[in-house]
Amino acid sequence: MDVPASTARSYAIVGVGAVGTLYGARLQRAGHPVHFLLHRDYAHVRRHGLRVDSVDGDIVLPAVQAYAHAGDMPPCDTVLVALKTTQNGVLADILPRITRTSGTVVMLQNGLNAEPAVAALVRHVSVLGGLCFLCANRVGPGHVRHQDYGSIALGAYLPDYRSAGITPAMQRVAADLRAAGTEITLLDDLLLARWKKLTWNMPFNGLSVLLNTATDRLVREPSARALVEALMHEVQLGAAAMGRSIPDTFVAKMLADTERMQPYLPSMKLDYDAGRPMEVESIYGEPLRAAAAARVTLPRLALLHQALQFLQAQPGPRPRGRRAVADGKLSR
Amino acid sequence: MDVPASTARSYAIVGVGAVGTLYGARLQRAGHPVHFLLHRDYAHVRRHGLRVDSVDGDIVLPAVQAYAHAGDMPPCDTVLVALKTTQNGVLADILPRITRTSGTVVMLQNGLNAEPAVAALVRHVSVLGGLCFLCANRVGPGHVRHQDYGSIALGAYLPDYRSAGITPAMQRVAADLRAAGTEITLLDDLLLARWKKLTWNMPFNGLSVLLNTATDRLVREPSARALVEALMHEVQLGAAAMGRSIPDTFVAKMLADTERMQPYLPSMKLDYDAGRPMEVESIYGEPLRAAAAARVTLPRLALLHQALQFLQAQPGPRPRGRRAVADGKLSR
Repeated sequence: MDVPASTARSYAIVGVGAVGTLYGARLQRAGHPVHFLLHRDYAHVRRHGLRVDSVDGDIVLPAVQAYAHAGDMPPCDTVLVALKTTQNGVLADILPRITRTSGTVVMLQNGLNAEPAVAALVRHVSVLGGLCFLCANRVGPGHVRHQDYGSIALGAYLPDYRSAGITPAMQRVAADLRAAGTEITLLDDLLLARWKKLTWNMPFNGLSVLLNTATDRLVREPSARALVEALMHEVQLGAAAMGRSIPDTFVAKMLADTERMQPYLPSMKLDYDAGRPMEVESIYGEPLRAAAAARVTLPRLALLHQALQFLQAQPGPRPRGRRAVADGKLSR
Repeated sequence: MDVPASTARSYAIVGVGAVGTLYGARLQRAGHPVHFLLHRDYAHVRRHGLRVDSVDGDIVLPAVQAYAHAGDMPPCDTVLVALKTTQNGVLADILPRITRTSGTVVMLQNGLNAEPAVAALVRHVSVLGGLCFLCANRVGPGHVRHQDYGSIALGAYLPDYRSAGITPAMQRVAADLRAAGTEITLLDDLLLARWKKLTWNMPFNGLSVLLNTATDRLVREPSARALVEALMHEVQLGAAAMGRSIPDTFVAKMLADTERMQPYLPSMKLDYDAGRPMEVESIYGEPLRAAAAARVTLPRLALLHQALQFLQAQPGPRPRGRRAVADGKLSR
């Protein structure tokens, strides 16, 4: 799995939580120079490295190249951004420093419109979007538990999310990630993939917060199930406003898949319960604004957006009921 | 204030909570024969009577005519129904027994369509609807605290909520209640009044439960405020589907009034927090079904309805945050 040092492309990891740690550790294990930009875990990781307890085999890296400041990092061939979108405000200062000219930035994030925002920050750089499907969570400083899955769907970003086909930058990043042990799907239409993922994320994230529940009850209790379906239909209308068609069969499959899943708490619910910022704008605000620009109103999704904005703005501890399921972040 | 016994119309009170106790006690104080149908407080009230600590002067009634079974009660000239609408299933058995032929039933309840349901139960009886505006709560068995307000708006029910004008039955009941110390407004269009009240009840009841908050934050935080306004607009559309016009100036006044109110927990929020059934169907289901029958879709209100149905169906304790305001039920 090792890459000859001479040809090994360099990577920067921005956002060293569950997602950034897993893929960064795999790339370093495969022989790439990997530069980790850390915040709260910097001191610990600099001394002790990173550790991934993984269903696919543990990865222990006693020494990694850890940085507290982007200005100390070398420009890298590829930057993997795995921040929560709520932190994207820091990227304007970071990305121009750490991205090599003609390099690649990969946005491993949820929701919509992270790619155009980043494309405006870096010139002569390929911007990709990555949709991660994995079950992993941070269990301590520099320590991640990877429980299941782990694939990434990669697509290239072109202005206005024009369908980009398979680009050389995608193929390079895909080759590196595959060689490092990650299953990769190549997407010829990133926007369609983002809206498909929103078909799940928009109903289940918001409802799990508002109704204080896991996914299983939402797909089983008849009124909530009908509500989920109405919300998914609105996502289909939003995608259609962007010229992307999400077929009813896809919606039906997503519901059926969710029915078969273990009771599951979406990331927004975990964030809400933990008092962290929720990804309200990337998952709701951006898609709704895109639809509104095309004169399409999505009233139920707009209600969820406003309700979540309200909850986000409330000070103080957040009430929650008994936990329906164990902690465990499945990024989807 | 006393009524000569020979002319005093008899009253039955069904639902002896805050509302039924206040108005029933006032009528008895004024000299009317009043028959109270009780459930959990029967034994206590039979021995100790009723007590209202009222901003308008306390009422202490050491002895009242208390019943545990409708079959033991005499037929009365007027029946005041002050149950929560969630209990209306008991009325089919009760009302025919306790309502005199050519008598009157007054539905002192929230929401829509209690009157047609009751009109189908009793023949040759006038059915009225009453909208109570009062701040009162039960503090113990047979013991109510009345903090503020107390007026009732009365309207007559005709099939399909046809506008009924001012009827003799309304005038009789209004005269008795006024003589007993209650401010009465006569409505010539009960349906319009019910939809106007829904303009407040539909946004604030549901949102206070879903967002775990009192009214003050809902009218002040910008995203919640915008959501309240969008919901009120949908109520206007629902009323219009019934041929009733709620002007924008009314909506604006309702918002302004709510801004000036003390932080307030709507009755549905108190019910939710206390683990009691919420009036989901009378406040949401009935208006939405009436609108749907006129082919009008109200998507945000439909979402609230489905979300509340889901919460109503969940077993176990209900999570709630710190209380934003003191308890105190303002029926509106």
